[in-house]
Amino acid sequence: MNDKNSFLIKAQENLPILNYRNIIPNVKEFTAVSGDSVFLDLGEHAVGHFSFAFDNVNEFVDAPVRLLIKFGEDLREINDDFSQYTGGLSKTWLQEEVINLDFPQKIIMPRRYACRYIKITVEKTNKPIRLYDFSFCASTSADMSVLKTYVTTDYLLKKIDLVATNTLKECMQLVFEDGPKRDRRLWIGDLRLEALANYYTFNNLEIVKRCLYLFAAGNMNELGFLPSYVYETPYYHSGEAHIADYALLYVVSVCDYYEHTGDVTVVNDLLQLCKSQLESFRAILDENLIVTRQPGWFAFIDWCPGLECLTALQGVYLYTLERFSELLKAIGDDEYEKYVLHLSQVRCAAKNHLFDERAHLFINKLDNCQLSVHSQVWMILGGVISGEEAKEVLASCLNNKNAKQPVTPYMRHYVTEAMFKLNMQSEAVEYIKKFWGGMIKLGVDTFWEAYIPDDLDFSPYEDRMINSLCHAWSCTPSYFIRKFGLQYPK
Amino acid sequence: MNDKNSFLIKAQENLPILNYRNIIPNVKEFTAVSGDSVFLDLGEHAVGHFSFAFDNVNEFVDAPVRLLIKFGEDLREINDDFSQYTGGLSKTWLQEEVINLDFPQKIIMPRRYACRYIKITVEKTNKPIRLYDFSFCASTSADMSVLKTYVTTDYLLKKIDLVATNTLKECMQLVFEDGPKRDRRLWIGDLRLEALANYYTFNNLEIVKRCLYLFAAGNMNELGFLPSYVYETPYYHSGEAHIADYALLYVVSVCDYYEHTGDVTVVNDLLQLCKSQLESFRAILDENLIVTRQPGWFAFIDWCPGLECLTALQGVYLYTLERFSELLKAIGDDEYEKYVLHLSQVRCAAKNHLFDERAHLFINKLDNCQLSVHSQVWMILGGVISGEEAKEVLASCLNNKNAKQPVTPYMRHYVTEAMFKLNMQSEAVEYIKKFWGGMIKLGVDTFWEAYIPDDLDFSPYEDRMINSLCHAWSCTPSYFIRKFGLQYPK
Repeated sequence: MNDKNSFLIKAQENLPILNYRNIIPNVKEFTAVSGDSVFLDLGEHAVGHFSFAFDNVNEFVDAPVRLLIKFGEDLREINDDFSQYTGGLSKTWLQEEVINLDFPQKIIMPRRYACRYIKITVEKTNKPIRLYDFSFCASTSADMSVLKTYVTTDYLLKKIDLVATNTLKECMQLVFEDGPKRDRRLWIGDLRLEALANYYTFNNLEIVKRCLYLFAAGNMNELGFLPSYVYETPYYHSGEAHIADYALLYVVSVCDYYEHTGDVTVVNDLLQLCKSQLESFRAILDENLIVTRQPGWFAFIDWCPGLECLTALQGVYLYTLERFSELLKAIGDDEYEKYVLHLSQVRCAAKNHLFDERAHLFINKLDNCQLSVHSQVWMILGGVISGEEAKEVLASCLNNKNAKQPVTPYMRHYVTEAMFKLNMQSEAVEYIKKFWGGMIKLGVDTFWEAYIPDDLDFSPYEDRMINSLCHAWSCTPSYFIRKFGLQYPK
Repeated sequence: MNDKNSFLIKAQENLPILNYRNIIPNVKEFTAVSGDSVFLDLGEHAVGHFSFAFDNVNEFVDAPVRLLIKFGEDLREINDDFSQYTGGLSKTWLQEEVINLDFPQKIIMPRRYACRYIKITVEKTNKPIRLYDFSFCASTSADMSVLKTYVTTDYLLKKIDLVATNTLKECMQLVFEDGPKRDRRLWIGDLRLEALANYYTFNNLEIVKRCLYLFAAGNMNELGFLPSYVYETPYYHSGEAHIADYALLYVVSVCDYYEHTGDVTVVNDLLQLCKSQLESFRAILDENLIVTRQPGWFAFIDWCPGLECLTALQGVYLYTLERFSELLKAIGDDEYEKYVLHLSQVRCAAKNHLFDERAHLFINKLDNCQLSVHSQVWMILGGVISGEEAKEVLASCLNNKNAKQPVTPYMRHYVTEAMFKLNMQSEAVEYIKKFWGGMIKLGVDTFWEAYIPDDLDFSPYEDRMINSLCHAWSCTPSYFIRKFGLQYPK
């Protein structure tokens, strides 16, 4: 058995190498008096440290110079007035600094920023000053030399792949971060999707192992679930949330890793932990093998407001059981048959108790009879329905204005995955091109945390300014495109 | 002959050693949520770098923390609302910072501050935080172990001496700064007074030599006068002002240095430069040997508003000529007799043209018939009048409400010097105790740049907040007290 400390040591042994690259913005030099501003464009989204120099012009600047420096992931953000922010998350995520400089010097700003644009305003100087030597030292643990160009004559798919790999690259730092602007944190839900896309792009295995071990070192909650996120700066800290679907998707991430690498060593390290997650989930099933609601923030599924998500959660459980059974079979584990039997029993139970035969949809009392795409998608991914029946269920629900629809690119991933599972390849490609392609048409450099085509001001946090415009869980089109060798389907 | 570069090399060879000392403020630790503030008291005025640590309390702080950190030389300043500042000098001299911290860490703030009090306000945090490990690393090139305690039973004189040496200590960094909060600059007027006080206290000769050489490397203006200030961070820069009285007082500073040390090497390096300053001044005398007004900021004398200062400037010239003649005699210079002759001619001229025999005061057309203490004091220091006549002139003027009175401690120094020259020791002690003692009664740790007993809000820059509360030119009571062995005169 491994203890927490040995997991942390293994996480450290798999520290990825950060690659650094200096980006020189479009403006080389700027002479300013009080009140002047300059906009710098890096020409691409970047994560890292900004540096510049300031000097006198003719006369010596004989009082400190005060600069306001603002970083924006896109043009809208750089033009936003941060002082008007009213959102729910801390305003300190908005990237801006006030700095005072006593005399001419080279400045290397100590914090890391995620941005394409930088706005420098000379708040106060008593003599003209010259700002120059602008440079942004970008970092990523993605190795661009490993990435193969995806060949397709379809311009939009090619562009989607480019932006998706770029999004992943930017989120790959010392861990798989959710967003390099905000929250810069390792979450299981993002880890799973980033690892998937990583296998088909940069194939950095160290960072995957590192993240798996970092979670393994975490503290379980009273139900036995893993922390949904962990911190590691400046010291390791196991996160306070223990979302059941994320605990399950950790197990799926281990299965994905084995499927991709065949690396038994890591699986052996984490096998008992994976079993414990499934056993913990089994313990909250009722006598009919249906999940029971637990207090607190228990399931995520999507940021969709008012979403009832127990049916979807049951689907995540089934999806995980199936993947885990395959893993057990592959490594010849004794308990394989026990898990397979349980899987089939839970599948039957789900169909019996959660499917409304008359409506021909998963609508049930468990979710207060709410109709959602989420329930249908996860029941399909969980193998409760399949084939033409499942296709009809999915199609009818996606087109139903009364059904709760996916809000996050994260949930959109699982919709797409369900389509591929049902061999709906052309529909999946259309879905990708419509949703992620919609952002492409807006000229994005990276895919957003939250995107609703009809509501560009949507934010899960009541203010668009705080949204992360480069978010890991939006990077999976590259996984689908490259895994399935997608071309324009017609 | 020495060129500018060789002066800069000699300045560098005399780089003083900075002594560092960690000061721990009264508050050791502080737990805070958004909006909370803590006041730290160092227990003394200090110049240097502030450091502290921040950490989580119970929950991990999962968004950047924004702190406002403000430094004040006294309690009034730390309680001032800097946003209300309306003065003429750049608001960036007001010592405050906004800093964002991404995660728990030790912070060493990069800028140097001059303060006794520090106020930290937690502008925004989403979880309680702990601030601790407060430390202020103070620097000075004054060596406290060299300083002898001045023995007197007079409590007030003892206290004045203590605060004066403290003021000097704080201004002694890599050069004699005028004020460590503002402008942190080497001016000739301050250099002269700091060097005088230094000879009787810390006796750091390196810093004096360094400052003398730094000016010697400067660029003369079209009249041939030295720059009145120089910068040396991050590179040497000769100041734009060339005030005639400061150019003369540079020569006096060289004389003071020789008188104190007998060091001919330095004098030989600077002798031609000193002669050039006197020759340049001689070139702006009229046919009667009286100074002529020059365009621009030509003379300083004092910050007294509306002051006419040509008579005083003529006095500075005489004062310098006398001191320089003594120096030439001591080193056996050929030109000694030429200077002595010129001195006596200019003295006669001053008495003949600038003294109003009827009013028995220096009131003349040169200064638009303005009556000022400044004219009388400098004519006395220049040896134009002496003895009882001079005493009467000085006394009548100091008590005349219609006369322009000294505003700065700098000018007060020369009033005091004139009293000692006239053997008015008890009046001088009273003068020191009344003026500098007035600040002592306010509880100061260091003497101020500007102090008018009846107007504590006085500022030469239209806003008290910007005043320097630790200013070099206020440190000379220690010179008088220690040179003349002052005790309570009764």
